[in-house]
Amino acid sequence: MDHTGTQVMGFEIGIALSDSDASLETVQFLVGEMKKTGLQIETFQGLSTQLFIKVAAPLKTLARAATELQIIKPTQLGMDLPFDWEEAHAFVKHPDGSLFSWCDRYRCYQHLIFGIVNHSNSPIVISKLPGNRGYWEVGESLVRKLESIGIVEQVFPLHDEYMRKQLLKNWALNWGDFTQQPIDDIHSYLGTQIATYFAFLGMFTRWMAFPATFGLALHLFSFGPVKSLLLPVFFVSITLWAILFCQFWKRKHSAHLARWQVECFALSDPAHNTPGIQDVSLPSDVERTSKGKEDIQRTEWFKFLMRFRNDAMMIFSIICLQLPFELAYAHLYEVAGSGITRFGLSAVYLLAIQYFTRIGGKISVGLIKHESNENREYQANSLVYKVFGLYFMQTYIGLLYHALLHRNFDTLREMLLERLIITEVIQNFVESSFPYLKYIYNMHKAFRDSKRSNELSEGKVKFATKTENEYLKPTYAASIGEEFEDGLFDDYLELALRFGLVTMFACAFPLVFAFASLINLMEIRMDAFKLLTMFKRPVPRVASTNGAWLNIFQFLIVTSICTNCAILVCLYDKERKWKVEPGLAAILVMEHVLLLVKFGFSRFIPEEPAWVRASRMKNVAQAQDTCSKQLLGSVSGERGEVHEMHKTE
Amino acid sequence: MDHTGTQVMGFEIGIALSDSDASLETVQFLVGEMKKTGLQIETFQGLSTQLFIKVAAPLKTLARAATELQIIKPTQLGMDLPFDWEEAHAFVKHPDGSLFSWCDRYRCYQHLIFGIVNHSNSPIVISKLPGNRGYWEVGESLVRKLESIGIVEQVFPLHDEYMRKQLLKNWALNWGDFTQQPIDDIHSYLGTQIATYFAFLGMFTRWMAFPATFGLALHLFSFGPVKSLLLPVFFVSITLWAILFCQFWKRKHSAHLARWQVECFALSDPAHNTPGIQDVSLPSDVERTSKGKEDIQRTEWFKFLMRFRNDAMMIFSIICLQLPFELAYAHLYEVAGSGITRFGLSAVYLLAIQYFTRIGGKISVGLIKHESNENREYQANSLVYKVFGLYFMQTYIGLLYHALLHRNFDTLREMLLERLIITEVIQNFVESSFPYLKYIYNMHKAFRDSKRSNELSEGKVKFATKTENEYLKPTYAASIGEEFEDGLFDDYLELALRFGLVTMFACAFPLVFAFASLINLMEIRMDAFKLLTMFKRPVPRVASTNGAWLNIFQFLIVTSICTNCAILVCLYDKERKWKVEPGLAAILVMEHVLLLVKFGFSRFIPEEPAWVRASRMKNVAQAQDTCSKQLLGSVSGERGEVHEMHKTE
Repeated sequence: MDHTGTQVMGFEIGIALSDSDASLETVQFLVGEMKKTGLQIETFQGLSTQLFIKVAAPLKTLARAATELQIIKPTQLGMDLPFDWEEAHAFVKHPDGSLFSWCDRYRCYQHLIFGIVNHSNSPIVISKLPGNRGYWEVGESLVRKLESIGIVEQVFPLHDEYMRKQLLKNWALNWGDFTQQPIDDIHSYLGTQIATYFAFLGMFTRWMAFPATFGLALHLFSFGPVKSLLLPVFFVSITLWAILFCQFWKRKHSAHLARWQVECFALSDPAHNTPGIQDVSLPSDVERTSKGKEDIQRTEWFKFLMRFRNDAMMIFSIICLQLPFELAYAHLYEVAGSGITRFGLSAVYLLAIQYFTRIGGKISVGLIKHESNENREYQANSLVYKVFGLYFMQTYIGLLYHALLHRNFDTLREMLLERLIITEVIQNFVESSFPYLKYIYNMHKAFRDSKRSNELSEGKVKFATKTENEYLKPTYAASIGEEFEDGLFDDYLELALRFGLVTMFACAFPLVFAFASLINLMEIRMDAFKLLTMFKRPVPRVASTNGAWLNIFQFLIVTSICTNCAILVCLYDKERKWKVEPGLAAILVMEHVLLLVKFGFSRFIPEEPAWVRASRMKNVAQAQDTCSKQLLGSVSGERGEVHEMHKTE
Repeated sequence: MDHTGTQVMGFEIGIALSDSDASLETVQFLVGEMKKTGLQIETFQGLSTQLFIKVAAPLKTLARAATELQIIKPTQLGMDLPFDWEEAHAFVKHPDGSLFSWCDRYRCYQHLIFGIVNHSNSPIVISKLPGNRGYWEVGESLVRKLESIGIVEQVFPLHDEYMRKQLLKNWALNWGDFTQQPIDDIHSYLGTQIATYFAFLGMFTRWMAFPATFGLALHLFSFGPVKSLLLPVFFVSITLWAILFCQFWKRKHSAHLARWQVECFALSDPAHNTPGIQDVSLPSDVERTSKGKEDIQRTEWFKFLMRFRNDAMMIFSIICLQLPFELAYAHLYEVAGSGITRFGLSAVYLLAIQYFTRIGGKISVGLIKHESNENREYQANSLVYKVFGLYFMQTYIGLLYHALLHRNFDTLREMLLERLIITEVIQNFVESSFPYLKYIYNMHKAFRDSKRSNELSEGKVKFATKTENEYLKPTYAASIGEEFEDGLFDDYLELALRFGLVTMFACAFPLVFAFASLINLMEIRMDAFKLLTMFKRPVPRVASTNGAWLNIFQFLIVTSICTNCAILVCLYDKERKWKVEPGLAAILVMEHVLLLVKFGFSRFIPEEPAWVRASRMKNVAQAQDTCSKQLLGSVSGERGEVHEMHKTE
């Protein structure tokens, strides 16, 4: 590939600085310090009162940072070892030919930029600000200091124009094959997390073809007397389809991870995410001293209790507060006769749930933060489950009410379509276009400002515009819990809700699969377009699993088995003649609850006590620490010999 | 501990040889060759016409064998590396202070004894047998050759008298605390597999205290009007108890494995069991060449289809052949009025199922052998599932028939007790006492023979008797599929069937838990006594998981939720007034089947494609091959330095 050379030297990080006359010196000092660390810098005047710095790093500088960070990378040996620049050739290159993935590079940039520290013995004056504010203290990070006094406004990743245009052409605006995506290119440009999302979305869309066709056939043709038999067949095949889909996705996902050189164990290994926090809970001799073991055991149970309390609180409040509200709305909607009353009701309801969701999200984030000694990925997953609980009630309870209590299938179908089209498509459109419009306005304002204040040469303005452009673009962030999640949260949420809508009510409205299929097709292009043009380049995340969302999909499949059975009962029993004794009904409910407990339970109590895991992890870490140098050395030694042998031949 | 020194030099392997005048020379030759490999030998004249060799190995000889075998052992580094005698101190010692576990030692002995090969250039004459039969061919194993011409009759592990007596005292005949077992000693004497069984049995018995007490209370006290509410409470708490038991067992098990230095991944790693077979399916460059990937993929799907076909055949034949038979018996038993008819019927039935089970077992073994390219542990598990299917029908269908169709709870309780006491206790007693009686008879005969034929000095006879004694004892073998399983198969089977009996019919007869609890207490002592006195010392097996049996326990829990619900319906609906519409019933059945499919399904399709796994395993193997030497060297180097530093200080 041609672009790998340019990529290494491309400007990948932008820094926005406030441009007052007082800060000019400081900025020059910053640039000087950054150049000292081996970074390549370009400075531009922005359109309004801002300066922009573009940062690039030669491979050598990146490698130095990677060595300092001890980034764990796969080697030719087959083991994962901390990176070492002197033995760089022992490490496996990525499929696109680069040594570092975008995620690694971003970590290195962060390390390089924020790692500029005052190594001298006395504070250095960097600004004419009064008091201590202008001093760069010993051991303080320069960029953090400048952030605190308001000179550095933002450090953000920059788009790579060449790659971005390639992807736009081959992916977002590729109208040929709808479900084919250049997954490897997406991975190397946007990181593992986002590539996983698009791989999942693509596979989901492809698999959707079967139920969409089946549903369409059921809707279009009248099968006469066979019709009443076809619905259960449809139900069974949809369930099998969903089960197979989840299982095959796991296979495909592990194949992707293998290709991208992401080790599976890294995903479940909390030490990778927050080493500082995790190490605290690891006493030195875990397996020897029973005291250390007991301590860990106690912490584990305490954590478990905290988690259990939080989950219980969340579930309790959802059932006690949200469920009655949703049922009240559904009931009023059913009772309200005229269209106008319904419309007004819906408007009030939509406003109220916005508010509800926001409060729920804030409470969830608060609860999760109290479980403070957990790793980041666990927190992110916990947020996913809690927020999905909110949305689950919001999305499905009203529909279930219409389907099961009132057996009003016309309202159900109407509301299904409404949810699918309005809340998914239009809301999605509004949500992403609103920040975009804000960006357009900002751009416009900045341009106007610049024209008013000073006349710059045309060429320079044009060049600076591009970085400023990106600076003004909105960040790809989650609507709830920005601390733990990025924009993928909303995209996955939308996908999961759609999956639930189509599977849970499959028997009531088989056609819905065809609609969802179309929406999915649109979604791929829209999300791709959004990521490439409307947002800043997303910050890559280390974790690369969609495990929490997959669990939600699995849960939705189980729920869909139960709801579809209930819907079938309603459909076949049109005259409400079927009777169930209260005793029998109670026993059936108990059975279902117990089955749910049986299958959901293994999530709560981990199979491996924390101390076993801790001691194993410690062992691995120890092994890597002790012998990585020797190992890498031995590889280079052998390689050298091989090379020499080839030469002498 | 005092015995470790003696343990290393103790005689751990016995060889039984046929003692005719013609073979005496050959035996001397064998002893000579064995001594050359560093083994220590003692020869004894048996009571009848047999010679016995007792084999011991000094640590150095064992270590040499371990180095040749490249036994993977945990090191101080925290990594598992192939054993190397020169770096022996880098490897972790076991809790009992020995370097090799009994399982490792046994493998080394096997290697040493069967690895005596003719290294010269021409066949050696070792016997006066006619033709080629007396020649020891180049590259042939001497012991195998002698086995083929009938001189070596059996190679078997010997009991360690000191350890055996200690265990008898502290474990089998320790009547103090019933559930306390010296698990670590059991592990070092009988191996991981058997220790796991007893740990499981012990924990099961301890946990049994809760439902036994609850059930007893329900039976003894009449709670008046609350009674009808207490049964569902009992049911729910039993289910939760069973779920918690399985989960906490997993935790305890992983803690055990960590203490015994058995790495968890070794269990799921097929290369450990049959490296020769497994390596064939691993092309050299898995991740590079897509062809290798496709080949593996094709093999994987072919295997999957074969497995699916076998399972389908098994399930089909169980349902079509065994189910009608069991139902017919249950029906006849219900119809037959008098006690004598019932007794006769039961006798015929018991004979017939013996036959059935044996045929079923043979068919299972045959089917499993056709899935030839799988590893041994997978085969063992597959046998467990298939045979359990047979026993499941046999044990529970009749009971379910009485409970659900005829609602005849008195017959049900009667049969439950009958099954528990007769088939479990008495059958167990008969099964283990029958081989023991045979052994007593053989011993007696041998002693009589020796007295008749020649008069030996008293002392020597006595000493030889002990080894001969053990030779005549029966082997600890499975009743079905000896190729794949040892005697643990029967013990686990009994345990699983008992678990099913008590949980599946808990609501019909709460008292059953108390009976099962007593039987469990007996079982611990009886099994321990059996292993230590009535059988040859069992051959240790590598695999140390009871995963297949645990899956069966999980399956039984799910089944028990459904059966108990059905029993509750029968109990509350005494007048058979509750009606279920056929449509509703059909939908409920469909729902349950789908839920079962959903939760059982993930077993069928592995989450990770075979090629991903293959390439990962190859990587690990490669890493170990490449760098184990260097690593171990580095450890010793560092250690040396540390020692020297201490000295200079």
